[in-house]
Formats: sequence, structure tokens, C-alpha cells
Amino acid sequence: MNKIKVNLDKKISASYEIYIGRKILDRIGMIIAKNELASRYVVITDSNVSDLHGERFLRTLSDMGIQADMIEFPAGEASKNVDVMLDIIKKLLDMGVDRRSALIALGGGVVGDLTGFVASTYMRGIPYIQVPTTLLAQVDSSIGGKTGIDLSAGKNLLGTFYQPKGVFIDLSFLQTLPPREFNNGMAEIVKYGIIEDTDLFSLLEDEAKTIRNESMVLLETVIGRSCRIKKSIVETDEKESGLRRILNFGHTIGHAIEAESGYSLSHGEAVSIGMAAAAMVSEKLKYLPSRDMERIMKLAEALGLPCGIPDSLSTEGILSRLKTDKKKQGDVINFVLLKKLGSPFVSSEAPEEMIRETINMLKGR
Amino acid sequence: MNKIKVNLDKKISASYEIYIGRKILDRIGMIIAKNELASRYVVITDSNVSDLHGERFLRTLSDMGIQADMIEFPAGEASKNVDVMLDIIKKLLDMGVDRRSALIALGGGVVGDLTGFVASTYMRGIPYIQVPTTLLAQVDSSIGGKTGIDLSAGKNLLGTFYQPKGVFIDLSFLQTLPPREFNNGMAEIVKYGIIEDTDLFSLLEDEAKTIRNESMVLLETVIGRSCRIKKSIVETDEKESGLRRILNFGHTIGHAIEAESGYSLSHGEAVSIGMAAAAMVSEKLKYLPSRDMERIMKLAEALGLPCGIPDSLSTEGILSRLKTDKKKQGDVINFVLLKKLGSPFVSSEAPEEMIRETINMLKGR
Repeated sequence: MNKIKVNLDKKISASYEIYIGRKILDRIGMIIAKNELASRYVVITDSNVSDLHGERFLRTLSDMGIQADMIEFPAGEASKNVDVMLDIIKKLLDMGVDRRSALIALGGGVVGDLTGFVASTYMRGIPYIQVPTTLLAQVDSSIGGKTGIDLSAGKNLLGTFYQPKGVFIDLSFLQTLPPREFNNGMAEIVKYGIIEDTDLFSLLEDEAKTIRNESMVLLETVIGRSCRIKKSIVETDEKESGLRRILNFGHTIGHAIEAESGYSLSHGEAVSIGMAAAAMVSEKLKYLPSRDMERIMKLAEALGLPCGIPDSLSTEGILSRLKTDKKKQGDVINFVLLKKLGSPFVSSEAPEEMIRETINMLKGR
Repeated sequence: MNKIKVNLDKKISASYEIYIGRKILDRIGMIIAKNELASRYVVITDSNVSDLHGERFLRTLSDMGIQADMIEFPAGEASKNVDVMLDIIKKLLDMGVDRRSALIALGGGVVGDLTGFVASTYMRGIPYIQVPTTLLAQVDSSIGGKTGIDLSAGKNLLGTFYQPKGVFIDLSFLQTLPPREFNNGMAEIVKYGIIEDTDLFSLLEDEAKTIRNESMVLLETVIGRSCRIKKSIVETDEKESGLRRILNFGHTIGHAIEAESGYSLSHGEAVSIGMAAAAMVSEKLKYLPSRDMERIMKLAEALGLPCGIPDSLSTEGILSRLKTDKKKQGDVINFVLLKKLGSPFVSSEAPEEMIRETINMLKGR
């Protein structure tokens, strides 16, 4: 038997910049033009974002002499599917888009995930840029290269790890964001404070009111700190083999609660409740000091995020969703718990009865 | 404006081994078991290969204590589409396959391309192994990580660059290969001799008869040399930005002829004719010595590969297909031509009239 080695151990250069600022839209065109990433660009966006920002965004690009077209699809998570993906691909082919072109994802998480997945597979991969327009996408999904679409069997079942060539975060997009969408992002920001940055956590405590009033100066700081945490976790664990799992803090129970509510709770609301639950379990297991647990609950409430589980949700329903998740993984449930603020760890210690008790206590809140 | 750098410049380790031999099937199980790539495996194959080798292959794995299931789809290029891909994914989900599982592509190019694409996108990527069963897949498509599916607008329009974790080439599969399939592979082997390895070319000249009789000893040598050439080109140019284009020698006119024949010519036959055409154009442009051109034609014929274009094909039809290709690229046609045997280069010098003349001369052969 012969053996031939294909030697593909090598250095790759997949680094990119995140630009954060108020009214940086004009600079986007300039930076894109300067970088000469591609000979033409196609902006992918949804119907909501297109109505609000589409025309202005295209004008910004054309003012810099950049050739850009736009493809739009119906807004909403329901669009993150194979049919919409194939429809975008058909339009790209009809436009004659080839491997020297690049895509620009203008929108929230759905737009970013879908555009990234199209970019990673169209003609075996073309470059793309993220221009997140929601707070959640700005501090979370636009950074790190996770792309994907949903299948009927579950979310993000098809996708890739495929890094963008740049992320442009313009705070002025937040002015048109509905309050519930704003809260989706705030829950993730609180999470970064809890798992990694106690200074950020204290800042949020001190300035909760100003932040709720959407002070742009404070938001710029808070978004910047959040992006730094996300990016440093992604740098260490690009493909989510270990460390990146701590980003799931609050998400395990959160997802079960979100699903059990029939998605009447938003993602941010469910994650906020999930973080309260994870903190409470951490306290019950004698890791987290009671004082820290109380601080977490208080901060959430000061920011207008819920900690209580609506009485209408069935405790056993939530538990059974957690267990389905468990069965799928062929393993015990791994919760992200806290030793103290800023010190998360992955654990499977929490017994079912303790989780049941926690859910019931949160129903009383 | 703030700027944060996401630092993803790093070393990656995507190297893998190609194993070549007669009757190495038993060793495959052993090597897979030793490498502990995954906790379970799913073999993806087509109906033809499944009938011939499926059961034996699964038994080889289970004899080594490896948990393996099999998914089969209808044989043929027509299966390389989105529907078959989604069907495979649905079956994987039903089986409970997660990120700790790996796929094994058992079959020809269609099986390899499709399985690789599924592996690269299923839950954001799981490992896969290539076990090519056709000569063409053994010397070409199983090495290099090009994956993809066809869309109605064209071939391989969706896909990824995603390297397998290993390639196992067992020559015993060739014993069940139809002669036309064997020729598809031989055309590529001749191509490697022409573009890169004059010793291989001479060996083929000297041993044409023995090779046509499928001498396993000689084939092992010839396949090994071909794999070495393919792998060294892939090492230098993984994502086909430059050098890898010389692998298209004979393929530009070849594809036009194959399509114009309504696919009644096989891929290998069309490529063989395309190589004759490219050699003739190289000679007309005063690069390739006439003697080398004659050697190329003679070797093809000695191996039972055609050099002449069937009279029934329209010269203008072939030319117009070349020009459509040209329009799509937004560029002139780039032919791979020869300075001499072993020295290919990319050129756009050939005027349309010279290509017309070449096609008409090859019709006379």
C-alpha cells in the first residue's frame, strides 16, 4: 500500500476589522472602495430594512463609484430557509454574479446568517461583509462567522463557519429599532457582563436608566465592550469546540422557555429569564453567592428585561423540552453555570428536581 | 469611530493521507478505527455502488467494531442536486447524526462531490472520508476538497472547498468498472502526463497495451503518480486562484464538445478530443513542436481514446458554446496551451478563426 500526504498545514489570514460608530454609513462606502474586495457588490436585505435604509445605503455605495445591486426577501425568521436561499442564488445567477463579486448583508441576524451561508456556498465561496442593523446582530451574530438556515427539524441545521471580510456597526440604525428588538440585544449585552466583564456589568448597573433611554454615547461604549468579548472568544475557539460554549449562558433554559411559549416570548426575554434561572441554579449548587444572584436579577429588571416565567407556561413542558435537547445530544444536559460574576463554567451537576424547583420559583416572580 | 480587529490569522492543520493499494478495503476499517475521527459513521453511496460493494463495505467496518449506517441515492449525475442533498440531510437528522459523526463517500465523482457538500454544511460541518470507486474519482475528484451540486443554470454552482480527512483508493473497485468509465479516468491520467510528468507520459506510451488490459501493477504506479501531481497542485493552490487552472487542459473545448454532443460523448472522450485540439492550437501558434503534438494524438489512440470530432457535430455550435462561456466570464477565453510536453501555460492568444480551423481538421480524423 502506498501512502501520499496532502500537505495543507498552513497559515491562513482570515482576520477582519469591526468598525463601530454613529453615522458611519458614509465611511462604509469609502472603506469598501479602498479595500477593493470585489469588482461588484450585491446587497442582501429584508423587506423591513429595505424600506427603512435600502435606498440610502445603495446611494452611499454608488456615490463612491461602487457597482451595487440589491436583493430583498420577506422579513422574519420564517425566511431563513432553503427556498429563500435558492431564490437569492437564482437572482445572483441571473445578475451574472461571479467569483469576483462580494455580498453585503444589510439587516439583523436572519439577513446575516442567510447571506453568510449563500456567500460560503455560491460558486464555492465569495467574500461578504456584515452591516448589522439590530442591536442583537451588532453585538452577537454579525461577529464570528456562524452562518446557517433552518430546516423543519430545527434551527441552523445547515450552515458553515465562514468569516466575513469586515463588520460595520452603525448606531444610527438603532433609532428605527422597535423596543422589543432593542431588548433582544440588551439581554446579550448583560450576558457578556455576567460571563466575562464585571466592569461592563457595573457600568450597566450604574447607567441602566440612561441606556434604556438609548443614549448613543453610552451605547457606543457598551457595544464596543461586547464586541471585544465576542471577538476574543471567537479568536480562541472559532468553531465552537469548547470555550465558545460559555456564550450559551442563559440559552439552554432560555430556548426551552422560548419554545414552550410558542415564541410569544422574544429571544431576549427568554434569554433574560434563562440567565436568572442559571444564576439561581448556580446559587443552589453553592457556587454563586446569593448577593451576585440578586445583582443579576436586579440589573435585568432595571433594564426592563423579565426574570419571571409566565404562570401560563407548563413546568413539565419546559422540562420535557430540555430533555428532548438532552436526548438529541446523546448526553447529559450541559448548563453554563457561574462560580461568581465573570467566572462561568460548564457543568452537568444540576439534578432535574433542582431545575423543576427553579422553574417553579421563577413562576412566582 | 472605533476599530476592533478580529485576529484569525493562524495555522491550520488540514493535511490528510491518500492510501493507494490493491485490496486495501480491510485496512480502511483498521485505519478509521485507529484514527477515532468520530463516534459513528454514515456511508453515502449510490444505487450502483451499493449493489456491487455496499454490503461488503459495511461488513468491513462493523468487523472493526465501527458503528456505521448507509444512505443510498439513485446513481447518475442527475442526482447531484438540491433535492437529493436535502433528502440525505433529512435521513441524517432522522438517524440522530450529530457533530461527533463522520460521513464516508463510497462511489464516483457524484457521490464524492455531494457527500463532501453535505459534510461541509451539515450542522456547520462534520468530517468526511473519500473512498473513490471509479478511476476518474481516484485520480481527480476525490483529492482536493472541491464539493458541490448542480443547479438548473449549470454544474457545481453551489459548493465549498472542504478537505476530506483521508482518501482510500482501492484498485479492486476498478474490476467492476464499465470500459467507458475506465476511459474517463484514463483521459485525466494522460492529461497529468502532458501537463506535468513526461516520465508518466513515456510510461503510458511504452505500456499502453498492458494498461488497456488493466494490469493492476501498472495501474497502481500510474494512479500513484497521478495522485501526486493532483495533490501538489492542490497544495499550492487550494482554492483555484491560479495554478490549479492548468488542470483545465483539454477541458475548455472538451466541455463545449461534450455539451454539443448532447452528452452522447463521455466526459473522458470529450476531454481527450479537447486535449488534441489544445495541442493542435499550441502547434499552430508555434509553441508546441509538431512531434510532441503527434505523440499526444498517438498515445490517445493507443489507449483507445478518441481524437477526432464526430462529423455530426456542428463546428459553429461548438464555437458558440465556447463564446457563451466567454460571455459568462466577462472576459476572453483562456485556453491552457503547451510550450512543450510538461510545460502548460494559460493564454488568450488563439483567434476564433484558428479554433474553427482546428475543429474542422479534427472532424477529418
